[in-house]
Amino acid sequence: MEVPLLIIIALISGILAILLALLFARNVMKEDPGNEKMQEISGYIASGAKTFIEVQYKILILFVAGISIILLFAIKPGEYSWAHMITYLIGAGGSMWAGWLGMIVGVKANTRAAQACTVGIKKGFEVSFFGGCVMGLAVVGVALIGVSSIYWIAGATEIVSDPATIILGFSFGASSVALFAKCGGGIFTKTADVGADLVGKAEYNLPEDDPRNPASIADNVGDNVGDIAGMGSDLFDSYVASIVAAMLLTGTLGVIAGEIFAILPILICSFGLFASIIGIYIIKMWKTDIPSKLLNGGTYLATAIFIGLAAVCIGLVTLFLTDSEDIRFAWALWVCATVGILSGVVIGWTSDYFTREDKTPTRNIALAAQEGHAVTILSGFSYGLLSVFPPALGLVAAMAGAYWIADFAHAGAGVYGIAIAAVGMLSIVATIVSNDAYGPICDNARGIAEQGALGDEVIRTADKLDSAGNTAKAITKGFAIGAANLTVLALLFSFAQEAGGLPQGINLLNPSVLIGAFLGVVAPALFSAILVLAVQRNAGKMVNEIRRQFEENPKILTGEEAADFNKCIDIATKGSIKELIFPSIISILFPIAIGILFGVASLGAFLGGAILSGFVFAIFMSNSGGAWDNAKKWIEDGNLGGKGTETHKAAITGDTVGDPFKDTSGPSINTLLVVMSLTATLFVGLFLLEIFHYGAGIIGFYL
Amino acid sequence: MEVPLLIIIALISGILAILLALLFARNVMKEDPGNEKMQEISGYIASGAKTFIEVQYKILILFVAGISIILLFAIKPGEYSWAHMITYLIGAGGSMWAGWLGMIVGVKANTRAAQACTVGIKKGFEVSFFGGCVMGLAVVGVALIGVSSIYWIAGATEIVSDPATIILGFSFGASSVALFAKCGGGIFTKTADVGADLVGKAEYNLPEDDPRNPASIADNVGDNVGDIAGMGSDLFDSYVASIVAAMLLTGTLGVIAGEIFAILPILICSFGLFASIIGIYIIKMWKTDIPSKLLNGGTYLATAIFIGLAAVCIGLVTLFLTDSEDIRFAWALWVCATVGILSGVVIGWTSDYFTREDKTPTRNIALAAQEGHAVTILSGFSYGLLSVFPPALGLVAAMAGAYWIADFAHAGAGVYGIAIAAVGMLSIVATIVSNDAYGPICDNARGIAEQGALGDEVIRTADKLDSAGNTAKAITKGFAIGAANLTVLALLFSFAQEAGGLPQGINLLNPSVLIGAFLGVVAPALFSAILVLAVQRNAGKMVNEIRRQFEENPKILTGEEAADFNKCIDIATKGSIKELIFPSIISILFPIAIGILFGVASLGAFLGGAILSGFVFAIFMSNSGGAWDNAKKWIEDGNLGGKGTETHKAAITGDTVGDPFKDTSGPSINTLLVVMSLTATLFVGLFLLEIFHYGAGIIGFYL
Repeated sequence: MEVPLLIIIALISGILAILLALLFARNVMKEDPGNEKMQEISGYIASGAKTFIEVQYKILILFVAGISIILLFAIKPGEYSWAHMITYLIGAGGSMWAGWLGMIVGVKANTRAAQACTVGIKKGFEVSFFGGCVMGLAVVGVALIGVSSIYWIAGATEIVSDPATIILGFSFGASSVALFAKCGGGIFTKTADVGADLVGKAEYNLPEDDPRNPASIADNVGDNVGDIAGMGSDLFDSYVASIVAAMLLTGTLGVIAGEIFAILPILICSFGLFASIIGIYIIKMWKTDIPSKLLNGGTYLATAIFIGLAAVCIGLVTLFLTDSEDIRFAWALWVCATVGILSGVVIGWTSDYFTREDKTPTRNIALAAQEGHAVTILSGFSYGLLSVFPPALGLVAAMAGAYWIADFAHAGAGVYGIAIAAVGMLSIVATIVSNDAYGPICDNARGIAEQGALGDEVIRTADKLDSAGNTAKAITKGFAIGAANLTVLALLFSFAQEAGGLPQGINLLNPSVLIGAFLGVVAPALFSAILVLAVQRNAGKMVNEIRRQFEENPKILTGEEAADFNKCIDIATKGSIKELIFPSIISILFPIAIGILFGVASLGAFLGGAILSGFVFAIFMSNSGGAWDNAKKWIEDGNLGGKGTETHKAAITGDTVGDPFKDTSGPSINTLLVVMSLTATLFVGLFLLEIFHYGAGIIGFYL
Repeated sequence: MEVPLLIIIALISGILAILLALLFARNVMKEDPGNEKMQEISGYIASGAKTFIEVQYKILILFVAGISIILLFAIKPGEYSWAHMITYLIGAGGSMWAGWLGMIVGVKANTRAAQACTVGIKKGFEVSFFGGCVMGLAVVGVALIGVSSIYWIAGATEIVSDPATIILGFSFGASSVALFAKCGGGIFTKTADVGADLVGKAEYNLPEDDPRNPASIADNVGDNVGDIAGMGSDLFDSYVASIVAAMLLTGTLGVIAGEIFAILPILICSFGLFASIIGIYIIKMWKTDIPSKLLNGGTYLATAIFIGLAAVCIGLVTLFLTDSEDIRFAWALWVCATVGILSGVVIGWTSDYFTREDKTPTRNIALAAQEGHAVTILSGFSYGLLSVFPPALGLVAAMAGAYWIADFAHAGAGVYGIAIAAVGMLSIVATIVSNDAYGPICDNARGIAEQGALGDEVIRTADKLDSAGNTAKAITKGFAIGAANLTVLALLFSFAQEAGGLPQGINLLNPSVLIGAFLGVVAPALFSAILVLAVQRNAGKMVNEIRRQFEENPKILTGEEAADFNKCIDIATKGSIKELIFPSIISILFPIAIGILFGVASLGAFLGGAILSGFVFAIFMSNSGGAWDNAKKWIEDGNLGGKGTETHKAAITGDTVGDPFKDTSGPSINTLLVVMSLTATLFVGLFLLEIFHYGAGIIGFYL
């Protein structure tokens, strides 16, 4: 019984992650929360975040309940649908818990980080960073515990022939939450941000984060919602999906020691977690005061450590293998995992290059701002599109490399190699999520330091921390998009496997397949447009509310009375949930409709088309948004005339256009792709039922 | 010998088209060219157009010569490469001649149209419209004469087994010219337009078309370059490609009377030409003064007449068929052609809906302009993306419908049915090109009427003609994109046919195929970005030149001395040719590289990916550009405060962003797709050579 030992390693590492998350949470809470004013503002943010989570989770629970009932009746009609339902509920619940924990700690860490800045930059960094680590570790912990325990129980009780299939339910649960947290959170955060800027900054000349602005708290809450809960649930989603995809693809390995290779992805993730934890402790001991060095250095460190530890992991696994070909194959998989994580870093670099203020693209966008609003937009738009090419080459190279290496070591195992590359890319997800969650904590800390009157020196310190977070974000965002895409590519192969192997392939020369591909390519464009329009519509409501408050109660502007923050939070919250209806339809009903009307090959092409164009739109929108943002910041640093000039105004236009690009649509496309892929894989039994094909044949659609 | 009879019909109809084009050209030239001032301005435009054509054709001839030598050595190594070279030269030469004729007449018609407006709106319309018809008829004439005579000679001399294969060379010649005329023309026109606006309007407050603006003539030349030569060569390209695709696919028909069905696409086009000509004469007799009714009514009329004449055409063809299944199949193809042209109309309607000032999208964009530059951009961007969905459904329905009908009538003939739908869609291309070429004639006429001081009444008349041209343009642009896409889909099947039928299909589950698809999806994004950046870079040079002229010679601004128009035309011309290098590489070398490195299936996926994402980008960019343009015009009509307000400024930003979208990148994607598809089909022999596969295998790329 060698298998339980390996599973136990994964389970224990998951528990370790949760314990560390709770330890870091306790440590952060013990820090000095600062003066009364700071605590007051932090309290507003915390209560706003609580409101958002409560309202969202209420609807989310209804949604999850509805889907779980559908799962009970609609998938793989037979004895295991209840198991799918249970794992689905566990996946959703786990993701909700991790998101809740990360948010609660994040909104308490901000004022503590601000206060810590009075001690020094390293101290300020630590409070922010360990605050962020809570989300990073919680995500990994929940995922590892969930996947390994379901695998173990399912294997031990032998309720299903392949435990991986019911882990699909777990993964789908994580995806449902990601849909709400990422898309809904993305709408929330930009509704508040754009609304606050349009009235507060533009009409009343209030500075950023001014507490007289009724939407200022919603804006701060939004940062946490987007970059802690949103990004966390998104990467949780991709992480679990990459593991599931690899597990499902062990079916392609044939006579090789299947069970070991089914557990391998979980084990690689455990060792990735160790790499992240070692990286975190090295950062703690690292004697440097430059926060961006700490953040990015931490990522590179975790990458290097992971590559080493993955070798240890493979070495451990080979102890259980007897066949020399199996052993050779295991080492080939180490190369695949290494290719995966390295390509993640390369993709992150290209995002960094295209959005950094000291590189040509962003610099040229800033220069274009001298020629007015339109040229700024054209320039950012073009560089965003150009920026798709290098990471596309990176992703293609990772996919091709992993396929070739795995196929070379064991004929037919190429797609499993791709899945392992995706797992490798996501292995240090604890580091990636921690870096991302660090961002809003510093951002809020900066505002709180200003409101709490901690002095210029402290604000400058907080500023440095904040700007490091922005730089790190470019890399983590590129990483997240690359990882999600490699994962959904692996899921595409899992889907094909679950659909009976698709012996005819997904042949683009078959018109029904071509129809699927066509609609798939269109889907991310439609999805992006709907999210951007949602932000625009909601921000309009926010604008009206802010104006109403200023007009009805002039004492808000003089600072004598507090604005009604909750009303703004309420608008952003409700709007973000209402606007989720259409995106949910696209991501869940669209693939089901294609599958039923045109069959599995067409659905495979739909997924393929969506993955490819989703990659283009996600990278383009994230990078052009990031570049506009940094071009504006560079001008605000006093370049090209600095603040208040026409050039600056044009740069602000770029930044405002970029806001929903980079924080709503762009990154939400990841979630869309994962949800669609999982929906297709989970409901595949439905699409294989002949009855639908006859139905479609009658109406002349099934070609 | 029934075949020569049918071919003779096509040949005669082609000759008829050329004769009519020359007749219309002579009639337009006989009109009164107006007063001296008008003739002076028209003279500048004509000489500018001549300069552009001379410089462009010089480079184009070198390019064509280079490609023709490559053709001699690189394709299907064997006895027919010289035939490819000759047909290539004929195709390129024919397209160049048609473009030259259309341009020369267009730039002479403008002042005559302005003068005609003094007589009345109907007279003004006629001069502009018949001026445009010259291009429309020349395109169709050259295409029909070229295709039918090559087919006849090749068949009679029996130099090749399938005459269609050497017509590919003719089609590729047309594509090479389209690449220069459409992409280069698109860069030229927006360089001049944006440059003139940025300095003349924004810095010196000169009105549009003010002759003191050194770029004003280049701007007027640009309109002709983009909408006469560019659009004409683009549709010439699609038109011939659709005929060739259908001819090549007769190979899939099996035992059915192949030769008749190889000639059928040419014959359908002849009857389409008759429909267009009848439509043109009905417009002439139509007693209405509303130009948009005449233009759009003309399109619908030609559509209806074509559906009837296509039945006559099929009836004629059935006289040569003996087998009842063949006859049934012929009638099924009539349905395919009808489906094709109707879906073209539907796609045109959706473009019209999304860009018309009295419909929700454009109206909402105008309203969004009240909230500033950024919201205007976000709104137009989102509606542009949304607007992709309805035409995608239309195209998918046309493709699926045509496939199913043809396949139902004759098993295995589905893809031929798709090609016939594309031919049907393009059958009334004479009408489409005429409507498009009408636009710049009126636009220039309006400016000339103003400069020639013909009075407010005449200017208002010219304005009405101009605005009808803009409305018609939305429909023709949608039509052109839809037709190009259906054509390249048909070409994809022809490519597969030429590549030995691809018995394994283009299977997305094969990683090397997936790589092709990935790079294919990215290609149009890259292409768009490069063109937009080219416009931006070139417009910058134009801005500097205009400023230099105003600074060095203050008498230009007072009107005492004429500006140096030629210098501006020179900048736009040279820049547009220089910036063509990259787009040419993408469209020709990219597919060749993919084919050599990864083989034919991967190249097929590359084409498929490019077609799908190209459709998304082409529709999105054209429609958002059109909507921004019309939102601005609606505001300029006095709505939401009218000209000079902040709302108007925001709308201008939208329009300026939209300019290169709708007139450079968006429509150029059509050309990109056709060139790439033809390159792949023409060089397919190269990709089938085993030597490359071994080479790629060694470097580990050929999976």
